Amino acid sequence: MTLDDDPIFRMHRGGKIEMRSTIEVPDAAALSMAYTPGVGKVSEAVAADESLADDYTWRANTVAIITDGSAVLGLGDLGPTGALPVMEGKALLFKQFAGVDAIPICLDCRDVDAVVETIVNIAPSFGGINLEDISAPRCFEIERRLDAALDIPVFHDDQHGTAIVVLAGLRSAARALDREFSDLRVVVMGAGAAGVAVSTILMQANVRDVVVVDSRGIIGPGRTDLSDVKQDLLARTNTRGLDGSLADALAGADVFVGVSSGHVPPETLQLMAPKPIVFALANPNPEVDPAAARGFAAVVATGRSDFPNQVNNVLAFPGVFRGALSVSASRITPAMKLAAADAIAEVALAHLDPDHVIPSVFDPRVGPAVSEAVAAAAVRDGVARRPGGRA
Amino acid sequence: MTLDDDPIFRMHRGGKIEMRSTIEVPDAAALSMAYTPGVGKVSEAVAADESLADDYTWRANTVAIITDGSAVLGLGDLGPTGALPVMEGKALLFKQFAGVDAIPICLDCRDVDAVVETIVNIAPSFGGINLEDISAPRCFEIERRLDAALDIPVFHDDQHGTAIVVLAGLRSAARALDREFSDLRVVVMGAGAAGVAVSTILMQANVRDVVVVDSRGIIGPGRTDLSDVKQDLLARTNTRGLDGSLADALAGADVFVGVSSGHVPPETLQLMAPKPIVFALANPNPEVDPAAARGFAAVVATGRSDFPNQVNNVLAFPGVFRGALSVSASRITPAMKLAAADAIAEVALAHLDPDHVIPSVFDPRVGPAVSEAVAAAAVRDGVARRPGGRA
Repeated sequence: MTLDDDPIFRMHRGGKIEMRSTIEVPDAAALSMAYTPGVGKVSEAVAADESLADDYTWRANTVAIITDGSAVLGLGDLGPTGALPVMEGKALLFKQFAGVDAIPICLDCRDVDAVVETIVNIAPSFGGINLEDISAPRCFEIERRLDAALDIPVFHDDQHGTAIVVLAGLRSAARALDREFSDLRVVVMGAGAAGVAVSTILMQANVRDVVVVDSRGIIGPGRTDLSDVKQDLLARTNTRGLDGSLADALAGADVFVGVSSGHVPPETLQLMAPKPIVFALANPNPEVDPAAARGFAAVVATGRSDFPNQVNNVLAFPGVFRGALSVSASRITPAMKLAAADAIAEVALAHLDPDHVIPSVFDPRVGPAVSEAVAAAAVRDGVARRPGGRA
Repeated sequence: MTLDDDPIFRMHRGGKIEMRSTIEVPDAAALSMAYTPGVGKVSEAVAADESLADDYTWRANTVAIITDGSAVLGLGDLGPTGALPVMEGKALLFKQFAGVDAIPICLDCRDVDAVVETIVNIAPSFGGINLEDISAPRCFEIERRLDAALDIPVFHDDQHGTAIVVLAGLRSAARALDREFSDLRVVVMGAGAAGVAVSTILMQANVRDVVVVDSRGIIGPGRTDLSDVKQDLLARTNTRGLDGSLADALAGADVFVGVSSGHVPPETLQLMAPKPIVFALANPNPEVDPAAARGFAAVVATGRSDFPNQVNNVLAFPGVFRGALSVSASRITPAMKLAAADAIAEVALAHLDPDHVIPSVFDPRVGPAVSEAVAAAAVRDGVARRPGGRA
């Protein structure tokens, strides 16, 4: 019995991506244009006007997928080498779903200063930075500092990719159930990268009642154990000033979003308002068993491909970067994320029902719709350096 | 008149390389194997045994081409963005001539500590590090410290790629002229990255009489202005204890190797021993005009493709890395570099004459010959972690 007896390992043998030339160099004449001495003219022109790198290098289509391996999928700290198969998979998806050239960079450092400095130092080769599988709360400071230091898009997918797709799914669910989106009472279970970002984007989308619950209960005014990140979250959420357990939060709530490693008995959903919406996104084991949850809830979504309504970041990140790169955006603004979610929800509208609030990741309309919406939002927000796109 | 009216710029538009998937992900079943949840099994296996990354990721076939843009071609400091077109060209050549996946990484830092730390931090994603266009003397310390810190091959191409091809060409020239190689008296003009490496490899190849000349004259015992690098060079070269000018060095010499930005009047070559060998490698303007030099010298080589005997690193670096990666070498030893040079000289032997001491870069025998020789030398030197190659 070898690893290669497993078809999954066979699929990954030798890796899943490769570098390819886009031009032919069949002879000395071509070589002298593609490389020295000809390339020297191009390099001198780019050195004199760095924006030309968007025209005459692959940079404008290139994203670094950067991790330190500290929080790989739901598996935890696998280290930078252990993270590489996941980052290659992500690179493959960037190309397949949006034609973006993405390079896995796995960092052998954990200190926030070192991570930030390393990424700033390698940034000139890339048009964008996709942060991936970096543990909370470090991920928040790393993203914030990179966003300030760099003039290219920085996007921590575990936060914002998830948040965008959750927002899209909840908008569609509200439509499918004929409910007013901004009136929904939402409970978010989990205050890590995804929990913080989901809460934030929902409030940016005008949801007024968001209550976040971590493993010790509601993040409320009675808590004395809150980290800086959770204190900040409390200042922005929980307008009713709730304290207590998950059950206290769920009482009368319309929406449950699980982005934790916790477990919730299906009966608990009976505490919620009638016909609740349940997004149980823990992978591979959803917080609530989805089949059982469907007995209590009007809409159930998970992170899994074998149940209806899969919340999968693949719906967001390829199009988000495609759109940002297409107008040479200097950053990803909140409005660009909201536009991405709206675009995904718009695609779902065509065949909307409670088991189809989120499009399939293979729906070919999603990538272009997200890309166009993100690019347009970048232009509106004034962060597009090439509002008309690249020539 | 736009830049794209120039066919060189048109060739570089959009960049010269792209990322590609090597597997198909047509449906949810494939996606769940290539990405989550399936990829989690692969990542966990790699985290438990990091050597499995050579089997189940692209790492074992992947090289980072790293520059800080401080010494781009012969053009000088073009900065990291200006360097990117050259690094892409190099990536293209890595793929075309040896099937190696090479990623341009342009660093926005100059401090030696920062360069070393950044490269160490990103090393887990790569099977090797090709340093490129980093100014001397910083390049020496950067390479030395990386070689000590990392257990993957580190190779500064401006030093060793040039040195390997020069050694190959001189071996062939000695054969073509029926001279004993180790008896040759060699003058190296230039004490930068290439000059130091050429002098070093020639001595490793048993050439006993090497004299190095910089812009102030012979690096000899009378000099009081020598940097650490040049003092070290003096300790290893110039066994006759010469001082003086280039003319003093050339008197009676058999070989001139120019790796400088200097200029030498062709008549000066008359000072050399009869039928001298002249490698004038400055680009794009050789130290000695090659047509004029041919009037005085038995063999003339340049860095240019429009004269016979082109010394081009493309003959070396793709095969060197291909060979090192094929046996998962932990470093590039002197014997591996010597073996690469011998392999190139061996290919030239088939049609050897004074105007063909160096094979064409498009000779399909070169890459495989270099790769095999380097892999075998790695095994002999005990630095191959997989002496039988990867399964």
